[in-house]
Amino acid sequence: MGRVTVRRPVLRLDTSPEAPYPRIGRPDSLAVEEPLEIRIGGVGLAITMRTPGQDMDLAAGFLVSEGVIALGGELSIMRFCPGADVDGRNSYNVLECVLADGVPAPDPSVARAFYTTSSCGLCGKASIDAVRTRSSHPVAPGPQLDPALLAALPERLRAAQRVFDATGGLHAAGLFDADGELLVLREDVGRHNAVDKVVGWALREGRLPLAACVLLVSGRASFELVQKASMAGIPVLAAVSAPSSLAAELADEAGITLVGFLRGTTMNVYSHGGRLRDPSARSLERADESVHGR
Amino acid sequence: MGRVTVRRPVLRLDTSPEAPYPRIGRPDSLAVEEPLEIRIGGVGLAITMRTPGQDMDLAAGFLVSEGVIALGGELSIMRFCPGADVDGRNSYNVLECVLADGVPAPDPSVARAFYTTSSCGLCGKASIDAVRTRSSHPVAPGPQLDPALLAALPERLRAAQRVFDATGGLHAAGLFDADGELLVLREDVGRHNAVDKVVGWALREGRLPLAACVLLVSGRASFELVQKASMAGIPVLAAVSAPSSLAAELADEAGITLVGFLRGTTMNVYSHGGRLRDPSARSLERADESVHGR
Repeated sequence: MGRVTVRRPVLRLDTSPEAPYPRIGRPDSLAVEEPLEIRIGGVGLAITMRTPGQDMDLAAGFLVSEGVIALGGELSIMRFCPGADVDGRNSYNVLECVLADGVPAPDPSVARAFYTTSSCGLCGKASIDAVRTRSSHPVAPGPQLDPALLAALPERLRAAQRVFDATGGLHAAGLFDADGELLVLREDVGRHNAVDKVVGWALREGRLPLAACVLLVSGRASFELVQKASMAGIPVLAAVSAPSSLAAELADEAGITLVGFLRGTTMNVYSHGGRLRDPSARSLERADESVHGR
Repeated sequence: MGRVTVRRPVLRLDTSPEAPYPRIGRPDSLAVEEPLEIRIGGVGLAITMRTPGQDMDLAAGFLVSEGVIALGGELSIMRFCPGADVDGRNSYNVLECVLADGVPAPDPSVARAFYTTSSCGLCGKASIDAVRTRSSHPVAPGPQLDPALLAALPERLRAAQRVFDATGGLHAAGLFDADGELLVLREDVGRHNAVDKVVGWALREGRLPLAACVLLVSGRASFELVQKASMAGIPVLAAVSAPSSLAAELADEAGITLVGFLRGTTMNVYSHGGRLRDPSARSLERADESVHGR
């Protein structure tokens, strides 16, 4: 339980003619991946492949992301079930969540509800509408941010990552305040899990909605990550890599500033650029016009 | 239907004091992400967020990966349902699959069965056992590969990627034969989808099991990707980035050569290194000993 990395024998090959050691056997660190089942009232809601650790944050954040709960008081208890592994030891891979009195248990197919509505067929627009309908934490108008502050965040995230350098296999999600201070960092083999762990931390700390915060992810920005930001009321989502089309559309609809390709001194802003001050001190309104073509 | 990229207005910021254009509004290409529902006999089996295109390959590969079918003859028909979007147009996002006579329809919770068995609790070992139980295509012993051939594949994959350079947002999966010839390349916002599209292509081409092939993925190697390789009988899975612990364990159990960090002239081999010739012409047996510590 809780192992984040594991050592394993690895064969390192180098095909270069100049390689002094073309073939070396040595132990190497790998990011641990293990299944976690999240149950409510004994009924399995989801199984996710995750890196063990902060499992209660992960489960709580998942429940927020899926619209089952929105505030800490709606979650009564979380406890590991005695789910034995093949050797009879508790694997700590089944987590039972008890909702507070009066909080309705979700349909077991809760995750599906995000992609389809009864009103129309299955399409990106319907998926966006489903998120909007479910979110209890509308995104606040603020904060106003200096783009140079955003540009400094990836290095801060990397500096705080204890595990990434050892395995190269973990996604990171970091939550920063409007001054660029790191509030929490979570890592996982699944990038959606890393974000759920951040949101779950915030729920359990009584910090939802996360107005005036920046969520930074180490990889790409998908629809699912913007959904999670939206459900937690996070106004700014920044990604080191590319966003998808539907991520940008949902961010636009949900009032979220979506930043991609945040590297060095540059970044792309896909929606709601008004939260970012103009580095060249030109008017924000004109810049917004140039983004949205209005 | 079938749009792989979409143009969108983007604000490009540069916070460097020397930047000639600190704030530029311009259109940019984004990778398209849209939901796809895979149905069997009118019952929804899965909804995945995917990049449109090669949807029938995606659905067929998904059914192989989940153990619903193993050969092309077990799939009778695939057709898009008339699922209208919010504007009343067919969104081509619902795909109905009809299994051949005598092929049992899967339980709607088919995907869950991979992570849990009735015999023991939820753990990595149980997940591995579940894959082994379901696979119809045991991995063949061959091929014997020159590591230098493997090292050349990432560049070939990149050269063949038409879309990646435009958006930076697509994962690629390429299937190569033992001579390093690219058989098929598939791209998607989801790396599991890219692999399903490759496997589905192979099913529809009558090429399963994929003995003597190398599957190369542009990102990391998770349990799920090794599962898909295993279900298709692929003997060598190579990833440009890191594998997880459970990916390496499953590859070991399933007889798959798992290569990670395939970059430049170097690579890490996590399992079954015997398929790779020794670049320094030392004995393969000794190298295998050094990997497995036996």
